Amino acid sequence: MIIRTLSTNECRALLAANRLARLACTKDGRPYVVPIYYAYADNHLYAFSMPGKKVEWMRSNPQVSLQVDERGAKREWRSVVADGLFEELPDRIGHKRELDHAWSLLSKHVDWWEPGAYKPITPPVSDHSPHVFFRILVEQLSGREAKE
Amino acid sequence: MIIRTLSTNECRALLAANRLARLACTKDGRPYVVPIYYAYADNHLYAFSMPGKKVEWMRSNPQVSLQVDERGAKREWRSVVADGLFEELPDRIGHKRELDHAWSLLSKHVDWWEPGAYKPITPPVSDHSPHVFFRILVEQLSGREAKE
Repeated sequence: MIIRTLSTNECRALLAANRLARLACTKDGRPYVVPIYYAYADNHLYAFSMPGKKVEWMRSNPQVSLQVDERGAKREWRSVVADGLFEELPDRIGHKRELDHAWSLLSKHVDWWEPGAYKPITPPVSDHSPHVFFRILVEQLSGREAKE
Repeated sequence: MIIRTLSTNECRALLAANRLARLACTKDGRPYVVPIYYAYADNHLYAFSMPGKKVEWMRSNPQVSLQVDERGAKREWRSVVADGLFEELPDRIGHKRELDHAWSLLSKHVDWWEPGAYKPITPPVSDHSPHVFFRILVEQLSGREAKE
């Protein structure tokens, strides 16, 4: 196996090609990691979530870390870690373009909706919707690849 | 889809049946998440690692969070989050039984060795080995399952 570092462009391409990430946030010295589905665009990862622990924690500390990987043939793999900043997008009208883009990418995947929540039938744009729409600004990227 | 909470015993069974986790640690308010391979025994997750960022961070703050999941048929899945404490096991003679157990479980998997490191041919028991052997004491477990 040859292990090599991925370039920033290769890291971005891997983020763009995938939908499932593990997101870690932290509060009072404790970490918390959960799977999320995301859509990547313009150096941001966009996602929907039900309110809960991870949203509360990210509201109190916006620093997060995400990990995304993909398997190749045999034992080959690529893995990227993205450090970034949480930003909630409560003004849904002001971010309609981003919301529609994220929705169109994510809704192609039957299993995209986050664990524990039911997939809404239409984009959660109503002010009465409990869903939180947010994005992660990617500040730092690192990645590695293993090839036979 | 029916979403239900897993019992503690079901969470433990999922940890025991799997090898790949995402481990999050934290330092100075920043989280960091990486994939690791582990072996579960006696309420601990055992793992080997090369020295590096995650080992340094866990040495300075032993509080960690791990997430493990498995896919079922179609859209079914189970996911477990384990919060716990890092403990390094530098005294390899004192933990030879745990080390041998972890090694025997992990070495069955051709792809188990952590991303970025080469798999050693024999258990890293030498005092001259750079590999770090550690375990995570599981303090809290939560899990959910989605079934059709």
